[in-house]
Amino acid sequence: MNERIYIFDTTLRDGEQVPGCQLNQKEKVEIAKRLEEMGVDIIEAGFPVSSPGDFSSVMEISKAVTWPTVCALTRAVETDIKIAAEAIRYAKRPRIHTGIGTSPYHIRYKFKSTPEEILERAVRCVRYAKSFVEDVQFYAEDAGRTDNEYLARVIEAAIKAGATVVDIPDTTGYCLPTEYAAKIRYLMENVKGIDKVVVATHCHNDLGMATANTMAALSAGARQAEVTVNGIGERAGNTALEEVVMTCRSHPELGFTTNINTQKIAGISRMVSTLMNMPVQPNKAIVGRNAFAHSSGIHQDGVLKNRESYEIIDPQDVGIDDNTFVLTARSGRAALKHRLESLGVHMEKEALDKCYELFLKLADIKRELTDEDILMLAGKHRMAHNRIKLDYLQVSSGVGVRPVASVGLDIAGEKFEACATANGPVDAAIAAIKKIISRKINVRELLIQAFDKGISDVGKVHITVDCDGTNYNGFSANSDIIAASAEAFLDAINKA
Amino acid sequence: MNERIYIFDTTLRDGEQVPGCQLNQKEKVEIAKRLEEMGVDIIEAGFPVSSPGDFSSVMEISKAVTWPTVCALTRAVETDIKIAAEAIRYAKRPRIHTGIGTSPYHIRYKFKSTPEEILERAVRCVRYAKSFVEDVQFYAEDAGRTDNEYLARVIEAAIKAGATVVDIPDTTGYCLPTEYAAKIRYLMENVKGIDKVVVATHCHNDLGMATANTMAALSAGARQAEVTVNGIGERAGNTALEEVVMTCRSHPELGFTTNINTQKIAGISRMVSTLMNMPVQPNKAIVGRNAFAHSSGIHQDGVLKNRESYEIIDPQDVGIDDNTFVLTARSGRAALKHRLESLGVHMEKEALDKCYELFLKLADIKRELTDEDILMLAGKHRMAHNRIKLDYLQVSSGVGVRPVASVGLDIAGEKFEACATANGPVDAAIAAIKKIISRKINVRELLIQAFDKGISDVGKVHITVDCDGTNYNGFSANSDIIAASAEAFLDAINKA
Repeated sequence: MNERIYIFDTTLRDGEQVPGCQLNQKEKVEIAKRLEEMGVDIIEAGFPVSSPGDFSSVMEISKAVTWPTVCALTRAVETDIKIAAEAIRYAKRPRIHTGIGTSPYHIRYKFKSTPEEILERAVRCVRYAKSFVEDVQFYAEDAGRTDNEYLARVIEAAIKAGATVVDIPDTTGYCLPTEYAAKIRYLMENVKGIDKVVVATHCHNDLGMATANTMAALSAGARQAEVTVNGIGERAGNTALEEVVMTCRSHPELGFTTNINTQKIAGISRMVSTLMNMPVQPNKAIVGRNAFAHSSGIHQDGVLKNRESYEIIDPQDVGIDDNTFVLTARSGRAALKHRLESLGVHMEKEALDKCYELFLKLADIKRELTDEDILMLAGKHRMAHNRIKLDYLQVSSGVGVRPVASVGLDIAGEKFEACATANGPVDAAIAAIKKIISRKINVRELLIQAFDKGISDVGKVHITVDCDGTNYNGFSANSDIIAASAEAFLDAINKA
Repeated sequence: MNERIYIFDTTLRDGEQVPGCQLNQKEKVEIAKRLEEMGVDIIEAGFPVSSPGDFSSVMEISKAVTWPTVCALTRAVETDIKIAAEAIRYAKRPRIHTGIGTSPYHIRYKFKSTPEEILERAVRCVRYAKSFVEDVQFYAEDAGRTDNEYLARVIEAAIKAGATVVDIPDTTGYCLPTEYAAKIRYLMENVKGIDKVVVATHCHNDLGMATANTMAALSAGARQAEVTVNGIGERAGNTALEEVVMTCRSHPELGFTTNINTQKIAGISRMVSTLMNMPVQPNKAIVGRNAFAHSSGIHQDGVLKNRESYEIIDPQDVGIDDNTFVLTARSGRAALKHRLESLGVHMEKEALDKCYELFLKLADIKRELTDEDILMLAGKHRMAHNRIKLDYLQVSSGVGVRPVASVGLDIAGEKFEACATANGPVDAAIAAIKKIISRKINVRELLIQAFDKGISDVGKVHITVDCDGTNYNGFSANSDIIAASAEAFLDAINKA
């Protein structure tokens, strides 16, 4: 009989705490719906007290999601808990995630408190959360560096106060697997009532051991794994969802099952990477571009290896289609929809129809359309809804000349023009746009990826701009990287 | 008393087996020298029989390196071993690394052989290698999926035949830490003579557990860790050097020491990333841009955290300088040299002098020079030695126009001109250059990173081109990304 492991995804809360990764509400709801589709059990939707934007995102996710539990984070503070309860009011399965730091570092330096006071606060916050919802998860921040005996007392008190889930985070990513497993085992053996609740892991990857720590804790009795897509998160990130799920699946002897439809992994990985502006490195386990590269034809000095010799996961199991079929003018709407979804782009019927029109036009010019072309189409479609549109753009640059750009914008129907020179062609284009739009906007980062494979070259551009102190991400794809950069800049501005 | 852990770096062998990551000989020697400087005990320099280029790189590294052991890989084939011995002839401490697949998958499908025959081949190859060098390392490929009892027999036979190091690779990255540690422990307890040799780990990261597996094996008695810089390598990569070294260092209770000067980690990470065209993702443990991002001022909702609460490694310990001082026209040669080295660029005196001249010129125009400016200077300096130089370039593109480029090249003093149109400005520039250079060249991949922080914007371009079936990498940095792309393309062509 397999043990069910609950997957708690915190991409939208802990994952989103990364500089330059902020998502807008629409994007958050989109990701939450995809997480639901993939089979995530609990979605941590945000930290409602942190900002009105976060509050309203948590509320919208609560409405949008049908069966997964929607969880909201709080500190051990009454206002936090009250606001969180309000934000998840419409969730079918609401959960409040509350807690406090229990390590000497936190007790002494952060709270300037004593262990007894912290324990009392823990109990109070669980009781208060319990007055709003039945499902209350308690976290002992920096549990990884908390003395086991004291930790056991705090956890026992939280359970007695009504906690249904107890979370033992390795906040600094410091633990070794044996150490972390021993901590979980100690709690399993010494905390009264722990067999009535779910024990949760929350590991960080500072020493590269988040996945191993999570698996070790599950083997020691934990049943909820807190993860993010692509392992994104502060510093070196959180535990990667795809690694934990695929380890459970490739090691049946562990006796763990999850509710995840693994074939959705690659699509959601691309979607999160695109929306959060966080490129996945080629050698990232499971979801990196090279993760299965050997299967696409690397021969080593005459040794022809059979698949099983070097492969433990079938790429199709995680939604990577080896035999990616090329789309042509004869491909139907369903084929386009399928490809878009495997690229992490979800479109409603009307949007899909418009995108299909663009697709047929392009397929008439180029005979075969690649993934990059499809992404470009999806981008163009998204752009068409923007308030500020690019009318025309002309840029000239090179070696021995000064880059210059002239630009025309359409802002809600009205036409504007400007020109500018700068150090580079992208800067010239952006400078010209800035002359028209009078708000204070700074480009924080610009990442351009360009592909050139025969006739079909497309550049993808991710941009992060700072507008009045808030970061906004923009994205575009175009065969001209300067045009793509200008479009990505406008995409970000349209969000601001 | 601390146990000494030997660091065996295989960046230049297993790390380099990645599509698009091939290095030329000069780059390999440069990396080997930096590995020596950092304190790596054993450098696996290549697989000499695989190509004449690899053979000569291994030979040059053997000459260039003074104290680390230089190791060459072979299969269990006499020719391989003979050629490897020849390649490491000049090494002060030569080692041959030979072995054979021992898992059922390898024995049955790859070799169509029997366990007894494989065991005999193992013994023969160790004996043959031993006739050339004293230091022979034996590997049992796919040991991770090899039955322990049979594995023990093979390892015992290899030791009897003279192996000084026995390597137990988890070739497919399938093992869990407990499982892998149990395997090492079984060998420690059941193989006669194992206490007289060094046991080595070689883990892959397919499930994200390479570092945890390596650490678990060290705790079980292994004393050599096989790693690569940034964890690069086939598929999901190898064990990351920086993670193993920093785990040993942050967990003194394990009682492990290495010879690594950890302050060199960040520099070599950047160097390998640049030369191998493998971007490091922002949330990569230890060496990612965000790995210590919290220390650069992220405040979370009024909670001001003290450093120790959230930080287990001091960024300065791995060579990341928090208080990066800005270089100005008054900065000396030594300051420039130091900055270049922290960026992974090593220059001899003469080259440094020339670069310093360029530096002073630029510092006159811009008052403060950033890391990106310095990288641009280093790139320009490298370019000055190329046979094919860019004379001039003019590109025009935009939205609603057809991109066009005109280019002038200087090839060994002779001038050439061409123009071309294409889908994008970079393609137009490259197409124009291709018209002049008649060899068949395809761009495999182009990655542009652009920064814009106030007045100092610089774009970095990595390119991989395929020229007559071989891949070459090019790099450039310029304030104009189109110019940088053309320069990077020429850089790659100059290598070809």
